[in-house]
Amino acid sequence: MTETATTTSPALRVALAYHRAWSAHDIEAAMTLVDPEIVCDSPGGPVHGLAAFRDFMAPFARSTSRTEVLGAFGDDETAVVLYDTSSTLVEHAPGAEWVHVVDGRIARMTIVFDRLPFAQARAAAAPPHA
Amino acid sequence: MTETATTTSPALRVALAYHRAWSAHDIEAAMTLVDPEIVCDSPGGPVHGLAAFRDFMAPFARSTSRTEVLGAFGDDETAVVLYDTSSTLVEHAPGAEWVHVVDGRIARMTIVFDRLPFAQARAAAAPPHA
Repeated sequence: MTETATTTSPALRVALAYHRAWSAHDIEAAMTLVDPEIVCDSPGGPVHGLAAFRDFMAPFARSTSRTEVLGAFGDDETAVVLYDTSSTLVEHAPGAEWVHVVDGRIARMTIVFDRLPFAQARAAAAPPHA
Repeated sequence: MTETATTTSPALRVALAYHRAWSAHDIEAAMTLVDPEIVCDSPGGPVHGLAAFRDFMAPFARSTSRTEVLGAFGDDETAVVLYDTSSTLVEHAPGAEWVHVVDGRIARMTIVFDRLPFAQARAAAAPPHA
């Protein structure tokens, strides 16, 4: 990630501001950067609209203890951010987001992460005969 | 993805050439763009060296019927590519790669994808009492 990329791409500025907000557990600030009609392609399927998107993203954001941007680039309307996370469930869980920004807010997102270690951690934490 | 980004980042040129090669099932061409001492952070754990990396990547590359780059950007030494794939196991499986390019070859990579649908597809395809 370069400062040049940070400062020259309007879409990347929004993507990184969104990233910083949820990384700081400030869900309200993060959601001000998301379009009310967001269409998000998530590993579990499509997520439509701000309320559903908040329900999808907030629990994970709250569980993170560390995030680190590995690569972040963009152009006028789109950006890609690839980052690592540590959370209460999984110590090392990288993720990546492609975003399309319209009028300063994320209108479309494709988010990629590995659900398998989260599923395994939840299964391991569940009571054996639940 | 912009043509400008394609033409101005040396690292992105390598990342996209690598992407095109494996997408065309040309594993040999793809591997010429990978450093013999590659260190790859994959969902299943670290992958060290070209032989192990080929074993990791080739089966998936061969199984793909379609790839589509959604976002691709880079600077002098690093690039990020986020793409969608269709394969024999999973119809819609996006992935993302951050790469560090040294002397025209990918020396470090963090690759992100969701292993869960692949694990589910393999389980569903297995004989019930295998």
